[in-house]
Amino acid sequence: MTHRLSRRTERLTSSLIRDILQITQQPGVISFAGGLPAEELMPDLDFDACAADSRQYGPSEGEPRLRALIAQGLSGLGLRCQADQVLVTTGSQQGIDLVGKLFIDEGTPVLLESPTYLAALQCFRVYGAAFHGLPLQVEGIDPDALKAAIVRHRPAFVYLIPSFQNPSGCCYTDAARRAVAAVLDETGTPLVEDDPYRDLVYSPCDRTPVCAYLERAPWVYLGSFSKITAPGLRVGYLASSPALFPWIVRLKQSSDLHTSRIGQAWLTHFIASDDFEKHLAHMNGVYAERRNTMQFALVRHFSGLAEWSAPAGGLFFWLRLVEDVDTLAALKVALTHDVAFMPGEPFFPVADQRYPALRLNFSHATPEKIEQGIGLLSEVLSQCCETAFVTG
Amino acid sequence: MTHRLSRRTERLTSSLIRDILQITQQPGVISFAGGLPAEELMPDLDFDACAADSRQYGPSEGEPRLRALIAQGLSGLGLRCQADQVLVTTGSQQGIDLVGKLFIDEGTPVLLESPTYLAALQCFRVYGAAFHGLPLQVEGIDPDALKAAIVRHRPAFVYLIPSFQNPSGCCYTDAARRAVAAVLDETGTPLVEDDPYRDLVYSPCDRTPVCAYLERAPWVYLGSFSKITAPGLRVGYLASSPALFPWIVRLKQSSDLHTSRIGQAWLTHFIASDDFEKHLAHMNGVYAERRNTMQFALVRHFSGLAEWSAPAGGLFFWLRLVEDVDTLAALKVALTHDVAFMPGEPFFPVADQRYPALRLNFSHATPEKIEQGIGLLSEVLSQCCETAFVTG
Repeated sequence: MTHRLSRRTERLTSSLIRDILQITQQPGVISFAGGLPAEELMPDLDFDACAADSRQYGPSEGEPRLRALIAQGLSGLGLRCQADQVLVTTGSQQGIDLVGKLFIDEGTPVLLESPTYLAALQCFRVYGAAFHGLPLQVEGIDPDALKAAIVRHRPAFVYLIPSFQNPSGCCYTDAARRAVAAVLDETGTPLVEDDPYRDLVYSPCDRTPVCAYLERAPWVYLGSFSKITAPGLRVGYLASSPALFPWIVRLKQSSDLHTSRIGQAWLTHFIASDDFEKHLAHMNGVYAERRNTMQFALVRHFSGLAEWSAPAGGLFFWLRLVEDVDTLAALKVALTHDVAFMPGEPFFPVADQRYPALRLNFSHATPEKIEQGIGLLSEVLSQCCETAFVTG
Repeated sequence: MTHRLSRRTERLTSSLIRDILQITQQPGVISFAGGLPAEELMPDLDFDACAADSRQYGPSEGEPRLRALIAQGLSGLGLRCQADQVLVTTGSQQGIDLVGKLFIDEGTPVLLESPTYLAALQCFRVYGAAFHGLPLQVEGIDPDALKAAIVRHRPAFVYLIPSFQNPSGCCYTDAARRAVAAVLDETGTPLVEDDPYRDLVYSPCDRTPVCAYLERAPWVYLGSFSKITAPGLRVGYLASSPALFPWIVRLKQSSDLHTSRIGQAWLTHFIASDDFEKHLAHMNGVYAERRNTMQFALVRHFSGLAEWSAPAGGLFFWLRLVEDVDTLAALKVALTHDVAFMPGEPFFPVADQRYPALRLNFSHATPEKIEQGIGLLSEVLSQCCETAFVTG
């Protein structure tokens, strides 16, 4: 092209997820690749009561009743928060984009878990972030390592997914949450806490937002309705400490004026109804069964090939492979067997922390397909490991 | 605040429009300030047929059938375009934001009409654009002035609203459209054409998109359903020359994954139905009457105070005041009389092209309120002119 584009476009990486998702959505493919909720569990959408009042332009901050319900829900989790600190977003992805707009210039240092959410990496990278990774351990990130990295890199913010992390499934202990908050308070470092999976919980675990433990550090908390209702509506939200909020609202306004009102109206009705808790309980029951099915299948087929823990919530298993397999190459082979997974490589913010891994979604396929798919996948991976052994 | 935000945030201007709109939405205020469609003319929203299929995540580019219908509509206007060049956006405002992301780094030169759409200025400013204004004349911008400005400033793109421009109401002649296209082709300068008002037309006039006359220059065409259906749904679109499209889709994906599917599904149904043309004809009949009512009221009350032309389409009158009135101060006085308008100042991309002006919306108030409000407004402006004379 002869014309100039922004430097931003040079940082648009090849759209691996897009390409993979397109292939995996072909009929007949058993896909563990995406993070799709099960469509058969989604609530019926009934807009009759709210359609007429959702036609005109609305407020950039979102519908007042929905904001109040969200603030009430967050306070119930321990995050004291007023409705005027809540912004409704066009999906939680927009919350990530607004955080990028708010904080990141070219070269701005950002600390993140390693591995972390791929689409957050892509989004922050477009704004020019310089990434520094905090290796994830069983209990979360190490607070001492966090402090050392803050002192060394002076990040604009720390991006964490403490509950049922994507891709690792890790859920921080309460002690780790408190220790992380103490380091952030001590150093005055802003926290961006991404919490889209918090209501998908299958075993008891600590889920208090880290933001709830902050006393001084600025914070942005990102929430989602996509995983528990209907992602096609594109309604998420964020809450923030008061000083950041006016900036974020202006950036939201210049991004898309406001979020679709019809989805907000339906959610306002649904989450205030008795149906909501029933729906969550049913969804979690089904997902727990699928998690258990995948866990049993993995024990049967992947012992010796990989290491993993069954996640206490969320949507994913994260398999650390014991041999150094090229997982992108393995994916190509898997697709010829009509089974798909997400290669681990792109989830790492920096190259030298990478290890060979797979992310497997368990919410979308039925238990029968999970059984069948894990069997197929183990054959593919076994072949790839043999090849790695022969050529290595 | 002790923590760092992006340089972008330093360019977030005070949210004048937001503040004004909040005041003007108080009951009892006759507001000519916003650009709100009349709610009583909006079509009924009936989602029964499409709710179930709109729940899951969807494609970033938008729903295939809607993209095909949009491409077909654009081809009917003379802009040859395939469905795979069409991206559905979360309102036309998101199209403007994606253009900013695509083209603008800090200091990137951008050419725009003077005056031009306030929210585009705000959005491009956030990305760091350096503005250069092209004064609007009755027939559009002057092609020779455009060429001289391109040679001098080497802009990343030219942003134009050739049909029923916001705020001026100007509609480019066909000769001006062709001459502008020729200059852009000759210099290889990308065009961003914003065309949200094209279907709101009350008198015969040329409306072929300038993009349709381009042969070589890259282009992005921004369209909207907000002005002709229901803005609360937040569904707009863009089309672009093929080389730009893949970049824009990736930026869309990192902004909000995709646009709400339920609004897309309803629009797909509505714009393919016979009701659509009937609805447009009815809406244009009512708006033409409101335009005429405002024109008569202005002739009665504003002759000697301002100069203007009745617009052939769109939503606004633009009044150039004959005396040097502080229109922001005048607005404050007007609000004490329960009538509101939009001051002209913020619509100018550069200070030295400013002149005192008002923008008056005629789509939202009833004819009775228009009569009454214009009378009140002329009293306020007459007082302000006298004050200007006394103190000047």
